[in-house]
Amino acid sequence: MTTDLASRAQADYDALVAQGMKLDLTRGKPSAAQLDLSAALLGLPGETYRAADGTDTRNYQGLQGLTELREIFAPALQVPVEQLIAFGNSSLELMHDTLVHALLSPLPGAERRWVDEEKVVFLAPVPGYDRHFAVCDRLGIELVAVPMTPEGPDMDVVEQLVAADPSIKGIWCVPKYANPDGVVYSDEVTRRLATMPTAAPDFRIMWDNAYAVHHLTEEAIEVADVLALAAEAGHSDRPFVFGSTSKITLAGAGVAFLGASETNVKWWLALTAKRTIGPDKVNHLRHALFFGDTAGVAAHMAKHRALIAPKFAALERILTENFADTPGVSWSTPKGGYFVTLTVPEGTATAIVKLAKEAGIALTPAGATHPGGEDPQDAIIRLAPTFPPLDEVEKAMAGVAVCVKLALATA
Amino acid sequence: MTTDLASRAQADYDALVAQGMKLDLTRGKPSAAQLDLSAALLGLPGETYRAADGTDTRNYQGLQGLTELREIFAPALQVPVEQLIAFGNSSLELMHDTLVHALLSPLPGAERRWVDEEKVVFLAPVPGYDRHFAVCDRLGIELVAVPMTPEGPDMDVVEQLVAADPSIKGIWCVPKYANPDGVVYSDEVTRRLATMPTAAPDFRIMWDNAYAVHHLTEEAIEVADVLALAAEAGHSDRPFVFGSTSKITLAGAGVAFLGASETNVKWWLALTAKRTIGPDKVNHLRHALFFGDTAGVAAHMAKHRALIAPKFAALERILTENFADTPGVSWSTPKGGYFVTLTVPEGTATAIVKLAKEAGIALTPAGATHPGGEDPQDAIIRLAPTFPPLDEVEKAMAGVAVCVKLALATA
Repeated sequence: MTTDLASRAQADYDALVAQGMKLDLTRGKPSAAQLDLSAALLGLPGETYRAADGTDTRNYQGLQGLTELREIFAPALQVPVEQLIAFGNSSLELMHDTLVHALLSPLPGAERRWVDEEKVVFLAPVPGYDRHFAVCDRLGIELVAVPMTPEGPDMDVVEQLVAADPSIKGIWCVPKYANPDGVVYSDEVTRRLATMPTAAPDFRIMWDNAYAVHHLTEEAIEVADVLALAAEAGHSDRPFVFGSTSKITLAGAGVAFLGASETNVKWWLALTAKRTIGPDKVNHLRHALFFGDTAGVAAHMAKHRALIAPKFAALERILTENFADTPGVSWSTPKGGYFVTLTVPEGTATAIVKLAKEAGIALTPAGATHPGGEDPQDAIIRLAPTFPPLDEVEKAMAGVAVCVKLALATA
Repeated sequence: MTTDLASRAQADYDALVAQGMKLDLTRGKPSAAQLDLSAALLGLPGETYRAADGTDTRNYQGLQGLTELREIFAPALQVPVEQLIAFGNSSLELMHDTLVHALLSPLPGAERRWVDEEKVVFLAPVPGYDRHFAVCDRLGIELVAVPMTPEGPDMDVVEQLVAADPSIKGIWCVPKYANPDGVVYSDEVTRRLATMPTAAPDFRIMWDNAYAVHHLTEEAIEVADVLALAAEAGHSDRPFVFGSTSKITLAGAGVAFLGASETNVKWWLALTAKRTIGPDKVNHLRHALFFGDTAGVAAHMAKHRALIAPKFAALERILTENFADTPGVSWSTPKGGYFVTLTVPEGTATAIVKLAKEAGIALTPAGATHPGGEDPQDAIIRLAPTFPPLDEVEKAMAGVAVCVKLALATA
């Protein structure tokens, strides 16, 4: 790196700082314009409160959630309607609570409660979702990182670990448009996850299908049906499937789903029956009326795509313009989901995030994509372009490019 | 009991069975007419989605819940606004989750997590609320029954137990219009609960103020401020206060509240932040707009009272007509809440519930008001008159009277 380049990079950065920006690419939040797509929800259900089967949604009961809403989302989540639960406003809490149940009551197939195990370990494909890792930290579940490949987790590593160690009780998976690298699990990876021998009899796949219908291209990518594959392999209780409308309707006021084998669902509902009389069925009805049917969800997602695909395209354009020929800098080009992963030369990610922060551009902390917040390569930056308006995304990303260049020039 | 009386009782019962009734006095559910009082909620928030402070309620965040809704309910729940959390649709799940947090992370003041204790015991004033007991059963918390008095739990018994045994970590309390006997805790009982020495440093009062504004008479009864009394006594972290709008607005789609010391609230929110990004703030806004202010809640509750007080009056009338002079038969005359407790001669409650069932009248199982579902006296029957229309309440209660008479005649 010549001094010329370094001083130009410094000058550009100084100019950036001088702009006094205040921009944020940290979290996968829908923008106000996306939320406006669901404006009709705010007046629903209006005059009606009866479900299709006559249930008065206003009163207690109905632990599994409204049938017509489960029918609408069953195909996208690849879960039979009778094995799908519609619940509260957060799939994260369904994941958390499922692990709490497993800690405090034996899972189907388990020899004992997980709190009575010497230790409980989950596999964390990295880069991955920081909130998954935080749930485990909070519950005393240890995380072991396994590498991601362009097809999903490195299954050679996964298979070896789970076959050998009965304390490994689960794996986190975001099978489609994974957070943060946009990876779509290949059918072969899903098959291997569903069929692999595990030392733990109570091994579980936490199948967080958060972006099941969140396509960024014409292509509506499908992943393999993990519940069906697991059942065929004699491991029907292995997967817990999660999803939500948080990034479909309203991020704070949507509906979350849990799907699993009949046995798992029965177990989960029996424990949950001690916790609550039932979820908010009026919100279920509100959503069922809003969508009408499964096709209604797809039509709605096309509107989201029209709003956010240009933001992802802006990232792609700015990154290509600046780093097409830069060794060590690469990025994901996701076909769906909410994130772009920017890979920078080893040891520079933290510095770049810090430079950006000082220039008024908030980025997710480097390392957040790894267990314990520690990326051993210090090379992964997660970019979330959906929340700010397009012009701000462009400004922020151009600013990030300036920061990357300065970090590389002074590394 | 003469044979004449017994055969008349049998004839009356046979006539009752012949009617083929299908009536239900089991659960404290609001009636459809009560739910209709909140019809406007179904179209709210309508065009608006901004909270008073500008928050976009549709998006993520806001773990403590909407300020304006907390302001409306803070006075009734006797919790400072900044120490009150507005959350999901169920106070039962707030209670459950609070105990889960205590099991898996040390409470403020605790020496260790409750799962690491040899045993954890809660005191259960009896008769009490079956769902409280079921939460403990599910979580492996043992229950020790303590007797209720007309002023609240028998504090001589409670004080002796908690002073002696550090495994006693808590007590369930429904301080106002208690489920099922309608008892209102005297100020002295509340003071003793708040100030008593406990062997456990992490002792908690589960103060389920479920019926804080649910008056059945002109008298808006207040209980003592347990948070303030505990703080004055140097036990500020002792109470967890719970409440909800389940029996104010919509039973399945209301808002639940948790209040506690600053330290407890901070602890609870920090753990809950790992579980969810936040509660459904649109539902908070919906409720805040619906009520307007604290006076709006009281005005709304007056409408409930107009609908349900006649049902309680019908029970009182039918019980008085039939059993004013019957030894061993007595009943509560609650000034609020959702239940009447019918006390029958020892050893007859189960038989009466069975007779009622065979005549098509569903009653809460005898014993449900006691830990383990076992009332050692077999003498307590909980009656819940709110859900059926008034004429059905009258028919069902007249039927129950027939069953009681037959049971007494053949006992």
